[in-house]
Amino acid sequence: MIYEIAEITVKPDTHAAFEAAVTQAVPIFKAASGCQSMRLERGIESPDTYHLVIGWATLEHHTVDFRSSPGFQDWRALVGGFFAQPPKVEHYSPVVTGF
Amino acid sequence: MIYEIAEITVKPDTHAAFEAAVTQAVPIFKAASGCQSMRLERGIESPDTYHLVIGWATLEHHTVDFRSSPGFQDWRALVGGFFAQPPKVEHYSPVVTGF
Repeated sequence: MIYEIAEITVKPDTHAAFEAAVTQAVPIFKAASGCQSMRLERGIESPDTYHLVIGWATLEHHTVDFRSSPGFQDWRALVGGFFAQPPKVEHYSPVVTGF
Repeated sequence: MIYEIAEITVKPDTHAAFEAAVTQAVPIFKAASGCQSMRLERGIESPDTYHLVIGWATLEHHTVDFRSSPGFQDWRALVGGFFAQPPKVEHYSPVVTGF
């Protein structure tokens, strides 16, 4: 499994609506091929910044399969209007699984 | 629970030794008060950059208790020599627990 980390900064005063939209989007990720986990975190030092953390079986399940799927369009339709700027997306591989 | 995300960039050609040192440090975090999970991830797009992801019961378990403990000194003694620059540390709270 690899992790997608999307750093999302939202427009002022849209936090509750954005979080509700992400909750509404959970089934999109549940249905996506190779999607194994998903959560949204909010910055404590930077409360306008969120991390969307998604576990994918392989990098290509995200970058190829999901991005070319109708689910990606549905996701962006739900949340894109809240973005203050384009999300910064990176991928990470676990190398030490502590506990 | 909150997550500490430490972004760590290591010096060139130290990856294997750094990862071994983090593995050696797992018991330090297991023994730390309020520490609930710990893993190390390596960037796919930026292979010199790691995320150390640590779950703490509260923010203060990290920022007050751990940082003033001997465990923090032990941790830095193990891994500090590999850092190319000071780690960038942020904290995040889960707001949507998808799956």
